[in-house]
Amino acid sequence: MPLVQLDLNRTLESRREEISDAVHQALRDGLDTPPTDRFQVFRFHDPGDLIFDPKHGGVDRQNVMWIQITMQHKYDVETKKKFFRHMAQQFDNIGLRHEDLLISILEYDFDDVYPGRVRGD
Amino acid sequence: MPLVQLDLNRTLESRREEISDAVHQALRDGLDTPPTDRFQVFRFHDPGDLIFDPKHGGVDRQNVMWIQITMQHKYDVETKKKFFRHMAQQFDNIGLRHEDLLISILEYDFDDVYPGRVRGD
Amino acid sequence: MPLVQLDLNRTLESRREEISDAVHQALRDGLDTPPTDRFQVFRFHDPGDLIFDPKHGGVDRQNVMWIQITMQHKYDVETKKKFFRHMAQQFDNIGLRHEDLLISILEYDFDDVYPGRVRGD
Repeated sequence: MPLVQLDLNRTLESRREEISDAVHQALRDGLDTPPTDRFQVFRFHDPGDLIFDPKHGGVDRQNVMWIQITMQHKYDVETKKKFFRHMAQQFDNIGLRHEDLLISILEYDFDDVYPGRVRGD
Repeated sequence: MPLVQLDLNRTLESRREEISDAVHQALRDGLDTPPTDRFQVFRFHDPGDLIFDPKHGGVDRQNVMWIQITMQHKYDVETKKKFFRHMAQQFDNIGLRHEDLLISILEYDFDDVYPGRVRGD
Repeated sequence: MPLVQLDLNRTLESRREEISDAVHQALRDGLDTPPTDRFQVFRFHDPGDLIFDPKHGGVDRQNVMWIQITMQHKYDVETKKKFFRHMAQQFDNIGLRHEDLLISILEYDFDDVYPGRVRGD
């Protein structure tokens, strides 16, 4: 279960459904996430609450779309890179700059999530 | 120090105190958390900002209550399951469906928290 | 790339720039973070949404400033303690009580972040 948290500029509120679909499709294509495994929290912010450097790491940022994903500890580096490339492509497809993405992954184990029932019970 | 972040539907805003107590009691019963060790952030959302699948994993969801807990890396799988069962029971007790819970655990080490002073100093 | 999330009382909204600078300076002084590596999300809350114990751990809290940092897994315990001391000093410098800080660190690996391009590509 990849749990997705998005902290975005409020100007993107009207594009929530498109962004939700883009992230989910990248998870499906990059990590083989099942179609029903879709759990996301959107948080919208005034621009001043999202602080970023426009050039750090050699990237040309005009804004920042902060996407945090908690996922199971089981994917290797190449699989994560593949997932990141799918994310970039999906956002490009809906006209949102992949340079503005800031995606981070935190990992947990199978037993660190309770999705409405105890897993294994 | 279990740090608890809750992202909930705004309709639950009036039930904040009950939910706070439910989570804290489950931590006490499940993980032996001390009574004074209570640190929680509530974030309330418009329904459209909380995206969930109503059936994934064989659970019958009507809503989602997203609870993230950062806690020390020291509990074994059985202890975490016990904690999850206490959470389910506590929420059932206040009339909120345990099927709608989405609890995730991320772990840190003793030295990864600063609770107002440097630990060990 | 240390990614900083701040959940603060709404009364601190007018002090956002000072707080942003304080955190960034502590990262520079404590962890040698580059000057351009500045990525922060501010979330402001009604007081009742930030629940804390005023005395837990022998600290005298009047409020809570919740700061979560996701950073690379590479710093040893002494370096983290040094960083925490810089945070305390920086907040004292701007008249905000270090006792009210609640800082937590979660760690990821180099390949767990996408800052607008795939690292290594």
